[in-house]
Amino acid sequence: MGDYEVKLEWREGKIARMEARQNPAVLVAPPPEFGGPEGYWSPEELLVGALGSCLLSTLLYFTERGGVELAAYTVTARGAMAKTAQGLRFTTMDVTLTVTLKDPAQAPKVEALRDKLEQYCPVSQSLKVPVRVELWVDAAV
Amino acid sequence: MGDYEVKLEWREGKIARMEARQNPAVLVAPPPEFGGPEGYWSPEELLVGALGSCLLSTLLYFTERGGVELAAYTVTARGAMAKTAQGLRFTTMDVTLTVTLKDPAQAPKVEALRDKLEQYCPVSQSLKVPVRVELWVDAAV
Repeated sequence: MGDYEVKLEWREGKIARMEARQNPAVLVAPPPEFGGPEGYWSPEELLVGALGSCLLSTLLYFTERGGVELAAYTVTARGAMAKTAQGLRFTTMDVTLTVTLKDPAQAPKVEALRDKLEQYCPVSQSLKVPVRVELWVDAAV
Repeated sequence: MGDYEVKLEWREGKIARMEARQNPAVLVAPPPEFGGPEGYWSPEELLVGALGSCLLSTLLYFTERGGVELAAYTVTARGAMAKTAQGLRFTTMDVTLTVTLKDPAQAPKVEALRDKLEQYCPVSQSLKVPVRVELWVDAAV
């Protein structure tokens, strides 16, 4: 499938400018608890965001293919970090996807995708941290 | 150490708005090869960027602690994806860090950090994909 390439370049202090393709640049820095300034994306958040957006991408792929129309969606992704004998490690990742359907009758079709998401998402398949996925289906009001 | 939390919310089409803390929002979408629009961060790029910025963060932590002054740095991170029997998978990740020192005499101190980076970076430690790290030290011109 090819390569995904990202470049980072020093900007000032601990802040780097992250670029890929024609995407708008993102400023990244270590998280405040490791001495970084407030208001910048940390590597830890980028990892958690990569996982959440990958599961979302996978869901969008399967719903489109299955003719399921979404009115809206939200995703909350959380990574828990703990100090272990080996150093700081992510111990679990939890992702909750909530989708609102245009047609509530399609809910069973979406619920059937739940187990597929993790299996087809290349980010979750790259992680050795346990990932828990919850998928909630709301009908449009 | 606590949790890292990221939220994604539907914006339009396959584009979602990604937020964490007070960071500027990032717009994300599936990569163009999976039907996403051009110009947005893909989950795959966020993962590769998380790894590159984490190794960089780790380097900044150790150089600061060791009193090494950097004039500049750049990082190139690349993730190779291939179709396997199980589906699309990242097969390797390659990260090259190039640092420019204010004092070239500190080069051996930086070179000694090479093997520490992967070990102390919580993102690389969360991956089951093999990660190769190169560290180059340039003297300021």
